[in-house]
Amino acid sequence: MPETGSAIDVAAAMRQALTESARACGVSSPNPPVGAVILDASGTVAGTGHTQPVGGPHAEVMALREAGPVARGGIAVVTLEPCNHTGRTGPCTQALIDAGVAAVVYAAADPNPEAAGGAAALRAAGIEVTGGVGADEVRAGPLRHWIFRQQHGRPFVTAKIAATLDGRIAAPDGTSRWITGPTAREHAHTQRAMIDAIVIGTGTALADDPSLTARRPDGSVYPHQPARVVLGTRDLPPQARLRDAAAPLIQVRSHDPREVLAALPDALWVLVEGGPGIIGAFLEAGLVDQVQAYLAPTVLGDGSPAVLDRSVQTLAQAHRFQRESVTELGDDLLITLARR
Amino acid sequence: MPETGSAIDVAAAMRQALTESARACGVSSPNPPVGAVILDASGTVAGTGHTQPVGGPHAEVMALREAGPVARGGIAVVTLEPCNHTGRTGPCTQALIDAGVAAVVYAAADPNPEAAGGAAALRAAGIEVTGGVGADEVRAGPLRHWIFRQQHGRPFVTAKIAATLDGRIAAPDGTSRWITGPTAREHAHTQRAMIDAIVIGTGTALADDPSLTARRPDGSVYPHQPARVVLGTRDLPPQARLRDAAAPLIQVRSHDPREVLAALPDALWVLVEGGPGIIGAFLEAGLVDQVQAYLAPTVLGDGSPAVLDRSVQTLAQAHRFQRESVTELGDDLLITLARR
Repeated sequence: MPETGSAIDVAAAMRQALTESARACGVSSPNPPVGAVILDASGTVAGTGHTQPVGGPHAEVMALREAGPVARGGIAVVTLEPCNHTGRTGPCTQALIDAGVAAVVYAAADPNPEAAGGAAALRAAGIEVTGGVGADEVRAGPLRHWIFRQQHGRPFVTAKIAATLDGRIAAPDGTSRWITGPTAREHAHTQRAMIDAIVIGTGTALADDPSLTARRPDGSVYPHQPARVVLGTRDLPPQARLRDAAAPLIQVRSHDPREVLAALPDALWVLVEGGPGIIGAFLEAGLVDQVQAYLAPTVLGDGSPAVLDRSVQTLAQAHRFQRESVTELGDDLLITLARR
Repeated sequence: MPETGSAIDVAAAMRQALTESARACGVSSPNPPVGAVILDASGTVAGTGHTQPVGGPHAEVMALREAGPVARGGIAVVTLEPCNHTGRTGPCTQALIDAGVAAVVYAAADPNPEAAGGAAALRAAGIEVTGGVGADEVRAGPLRHWIFRQQHGRPFVTAKIAATLDGRIAAPDGTSRWITGPTAREHAHTQRAMIDAIVIGTGTALADDPSLTARRPDGSVYPHQPARVVLGTRDLPPQARLRDAAAPLIQVRSHDPREVLAALPDALWVLVEGGPGIIGAFLEAGLVDQVQAYLAPTVLGDGSPAVLDRSVQTLAQAHRFQRESVTELGDDLLITLARR
């Protein structure tokens, strides 16, 4: 690898590739959201790219296109082991070989048997290959949900609640706007722009008539919108906001969370937003991988609870998680729990 | 002040006085929990002390006794302006003058008109006096509840809950041991050893038969125990743990939080532990100054909510607080909110 240990900062390039990969989250599904950075022979960033929507170029190809001929003798820094698989697009390994890069540095190895073998193919072509650089951060970050799908054959499911400190999501009269403040709501919308689908029940859909779009504080919509999935047998009225053209609407006429996930064969990351019974159904089915609770510094003392799971009778049946992070968002807190 | 700016570290002595004062919390009521450190003329710690139970010596006198004759020409470092008032004990100002200290450094000024004037009296006796050193920390720490009582004429009230992330304090079958883990429970007991009274309702008393004592992890009891206050009209059985000799039992045969506080004329800090309706009654009465929520990384989905306040109908009536602190306690979080 040319000068890696001295002047060329591969770790910084990997951080840049990680940032780049986040732009592909929700966009690249079912392909992994990958980021790539091409350094020229002197270590200068010559191109960056991320995975395009399905059928489009992968991250390496995007970055190589931007770099052009200076990729020759340079280093490709990629968040995932380059694929060795001809699917809808040609293998990235061949693109890297053709471009003449001297070295490839990647973070996570590809767990997909069809696509794996990239590192070996590159080495066979005389390219110096280093894996595992920044792997922990990449696996816990943008690639988390894709890796989960590879391992479990279903999307990663996050249950999201926005509640008072005592776990209420609406007052007795149904008012709930707004329990959390603008910083928390903006955070939630940023996340919506990175996921594949939002799941709600018909009860919430009929009561709140939400749009479930990912919007910026000024009301404009993000380029990527998650599919809107409504769970239940009741019909939505023709004028429901969920029927607008902003994003796909999928109605699953069932209360079984497994059927919801089966209806989303390409999804990597699904957010279950409620109501309480829908979150309870996913918990009871063992299909909640993460809980995100936006908690306001407020106590209601009555009104709708955030979660309803009538299958739980005794404390030993509680759904146990472990703390993943605690983030201050203005006046509110975001507490994230993950499956133990 | 002798050499304060150079060799003598008054700030360190104030931190030691603050630590010392914490030992008086709950013990000194209704007097303020004060800590004092006497430095000899060279700046070496010669004595430390904290306020003794009512009728006993104040912090300055305790520290002067330990220092003995080397207090002469030294510095007294005290968390509260020395009192100038002859109550059950003589004024601390006179004790400091008699001991011949050259300087007095204190943190918070005394807001009590009867006891104030200490700084002036010391200056009149030729002692160099500096106030305000470490005042913010002292006011937010051990002296917080006493200052509150001086200002509001009632104890500072903390509502404490130990709940799942979705705000449940017991499963449908009543099981609740243990929702939070050992680190959180140990923290709660440490706090019990610093307060004046714990308030629960007869419902909790009859259902759980708690002892409400402040205990160490090995089961031994702390030297200071809060009074146990039971709110409600039902009688406790003769064998109730609350009737044991470990701490006083006060039954207030009313559901009015104001009557509870009136029954505690000497209390500085009162903890309302539940059940949900008792906490709701204090919230409705506007008598909750702080909320402490120990939250486990667990979701129940059913069972008893942490707070019940049937007076709240709409979100605008929510009880609003502001975040004071977030502390990780093992697997659990302690979220503390304070009145806005």
